[in-house]
Amino acid sequence: MAQTRAKIAVDAMGGDNAPEEIVAGAIRAAAELEVDILIVGDSDAIQSEIDKHGNTVNNIEIVPADGVVSMEEEALVGVRRKPNASINVSMNLVKEKRSQGVVSAGHSGAAMAAALLGLGRIKGIDRPAIGAVFPTMYANKSVIVLDVGANVDCKPKYLEQFALMGTVYSKYVLEIEDPKVGLVNIGEESSKGNELAKETYKLLSDNPNISFLGNAEGRDVLSGDFDVIVCDGFVGNVLLKFAEAVGEIMLQIIKEELPFGIRGKIGAGILKPNLKRIKQRIDHAEHGGALLLGVNGVCIVSHGSSQAPSIFNAIRIAKEAIGHGVIEKIQNAQSLDREKLTIDN
Amino acid sequence: MAQTRAKIAVDAMGGDNAPEEIVAGAIRAAAELEVDILIVGDSDAIQSEIDKHGNTVNNIEIVPADGVVSMEEEALVGVRRKPNASINVSMNLVKEKRSQGVVSAGHSGAAMAAALLGLGRIKGIDRPAIGAVFPTMYANKSVIVLDVGANVDCKPKYLEQFALMGTVYSKYVLEIEDPKVGLVNIGEESSKGNELAKETYKLLSDNPNISFLGNAEGRDVLSGDFDVIVCDGFVGNVLLKFAEAVGEIMLQIIKEELPFGIRGKIGAGILKPNLKRIKQRIDHAEHGGALLLGVNGVCIVSHGSSQAPSIFNAIRIAKEAIGHGVIEKIQNAQSLDREKLTIDN
Repeated sequence: MAQTRAKIAVDAMGGDNAPEEIVAGAIRAAAELEVDILIVGDSDAIQSEIDKHGNTVNNIEIVPADGVVSMEEEALVGVRRKPNASINVSMNLVKEKRSQGVVSAGHSGAAMAAALLGLGRIKGIDRPAIGAVFPTMYANKSVIVLDVGANVDCKPKYLEQFALMGTVYSKYVLEIEDPKVGLVNIGEESSKGNELAKETYKLLSDNPNISFLGNAEGRDVLSGDFDVIVCDGFVGNVLLKFAEAVGEIMLQIIKEELPFGIRGKIGAGILKPNLKRIKQRIDHAEHGGALLLGVNGVCIVSHGSSQAPSIFNAIRIAKEAIGHGVIEKIQNAQSLDREKLTIDN
Repeated sequence: MAQTRAKIAVDAMGGDNAPEEIVAGAIRAAAELEVDILIVGDSDAIQSEIDKHGNTVNNIEIVPADGVVSMEEEALVGVRRKPNASINVSMNLVKEKRSQGVVSAGHSGAAMAAALLGLGRIKGIDRPAIGAVFPTMYANKSVIVLDVGANVDCKPKYLEQFALMGTVYSKYVLEIEDPKVGLVNIGEESSKGNELAKETYKLLSDNPNISFLGNAEGRDVLSGDFDVIVCDGFVGNVLLKFAEAVGEIMLQIIKEELPFGIRGKIGAGILKPNLKRIKQRIDHAEHGGALLLGVNGVCIVSHGSSQAPSIFNAIRIAKEAIGHGVIEKIQNAQSLDREKLTIDN
């Protein structure tokens, strides 16, 4: 595929550390990633952050916006009431084809509402889903889990669509030749689980465009056996936040127990570089943002607490999704014929 | 409370490592825990395992049973078809007041079915729940999560009953003066979540016998802020198995990364005792078994892969639950008045 230079809108005003950390991450991405950045929000605030960095990066352009949908606001209400808020202006840049993707660390519900209203759903997709890429047992293997919070109550066909979108993402962005799909459930057998799981099992089994490997129990999610894991947004959200916390707790336990005693102090000193490697593999913050899949544009929803490195990573993920034509691939997914598909970079 | 010596039935035939590891764990418990053990199953097989240990422990008695409900069988069908299977005989010992509790590492669905048929539900409890005790952020603090798999589809009132049973367990066994209860959800606000969560929120808020702290997001489950966490058995089961796997993955990452390079090899050697401490805090196997709460007897459901140390721990948990009169406390819980309750050892 001919790679066009990606143009990405970054919502400078969303998140706990906006605009400072957002601008810092965007500047680094503009300098290092071969992307053009449209940074959206309060022009003066953004300019003063850019000035702090001193250097002149050419490929970053300020697009003014007025206001922000705050975490306290009901998403849809906020998005409708503030048409010029940074998240709406960001989505409009995609709609007007001035950019191909959006990165926001703001209210994730607002990002979804703004994407739905501004960009619309992809034809054939009933509900967009948020996909999160998790590390697995294996150092170089990831798994995409969806939905992690967009839809708390799901129908079986939504989960089937999530599986299809996850397959496209896994195949084209993560470059897995034949992504193996798993359905979150409480047992391996098709008869296990709640009504949603049982019905979804049938749909996934029957869909020729999905390589359905079967049910994935909690222990299988990060086993590396699956490339795509589907579940409703309630279960997925609980899992995502639980995983983040468990990572932090593990690091905390290591930090407490490793330097215990004299041997511990000596050993922990020697092991500093190795501990850093462990932290990097465990720490979710290194991984960037989640993907809103199913709308007509690349949308990356970053964690509210994102700092510059996460924003940088989120922009990198957006660039990859754009470069691999994920949206077009999902738009064409209704006619997906697995046999004919090849990895197409 | 006057402590009577606990008498516990142990299903020798259930689990991947039965009867060898089960008998080994039971012998150790009989020797170290001041409990009397009734060990249930194939007499010859059990006797030959006991003989391996050479020493004579007086307080372990074999109770013969015929057959076992296997993992492949549908729980209720197997339990009904094999009245003399080890799990049924174990439950009958409680029913006949020859023991006060059961420990089994066999088919957990079969254990539940046998308990329901053999012991019956506690009055006022619609559905028994499986409670699992998780470690938290703090070295000396645990949290009990229920249900972790008995009920995939729940009504709000079931979750309210789970909260009550968890409160009793936390108060009397874990000795938490005023256990704080959380409801698994995808956000802190009462308006968040699926229908089950929203309705349950109201019930928990209104119940004077429950110290409801509010919604617990995935990240809050192990934070130590909550003593009791309630959710439906689908979400809880996925969380439990996910947590077990994450613990293993973390240990795997540490094992891979810590001895990396020359510094790593030296440091990891020095740190061996500390790594063992980390493993103990993380490793779920150290923690024993889950509790089936809501039936008329103490039932501990151990992991199918349990080895002797887990069985030993499960017997210890059963002993504590019996000693603290958990069943009687739950039986009386309908009339619980939080103000009047004191920690009663």
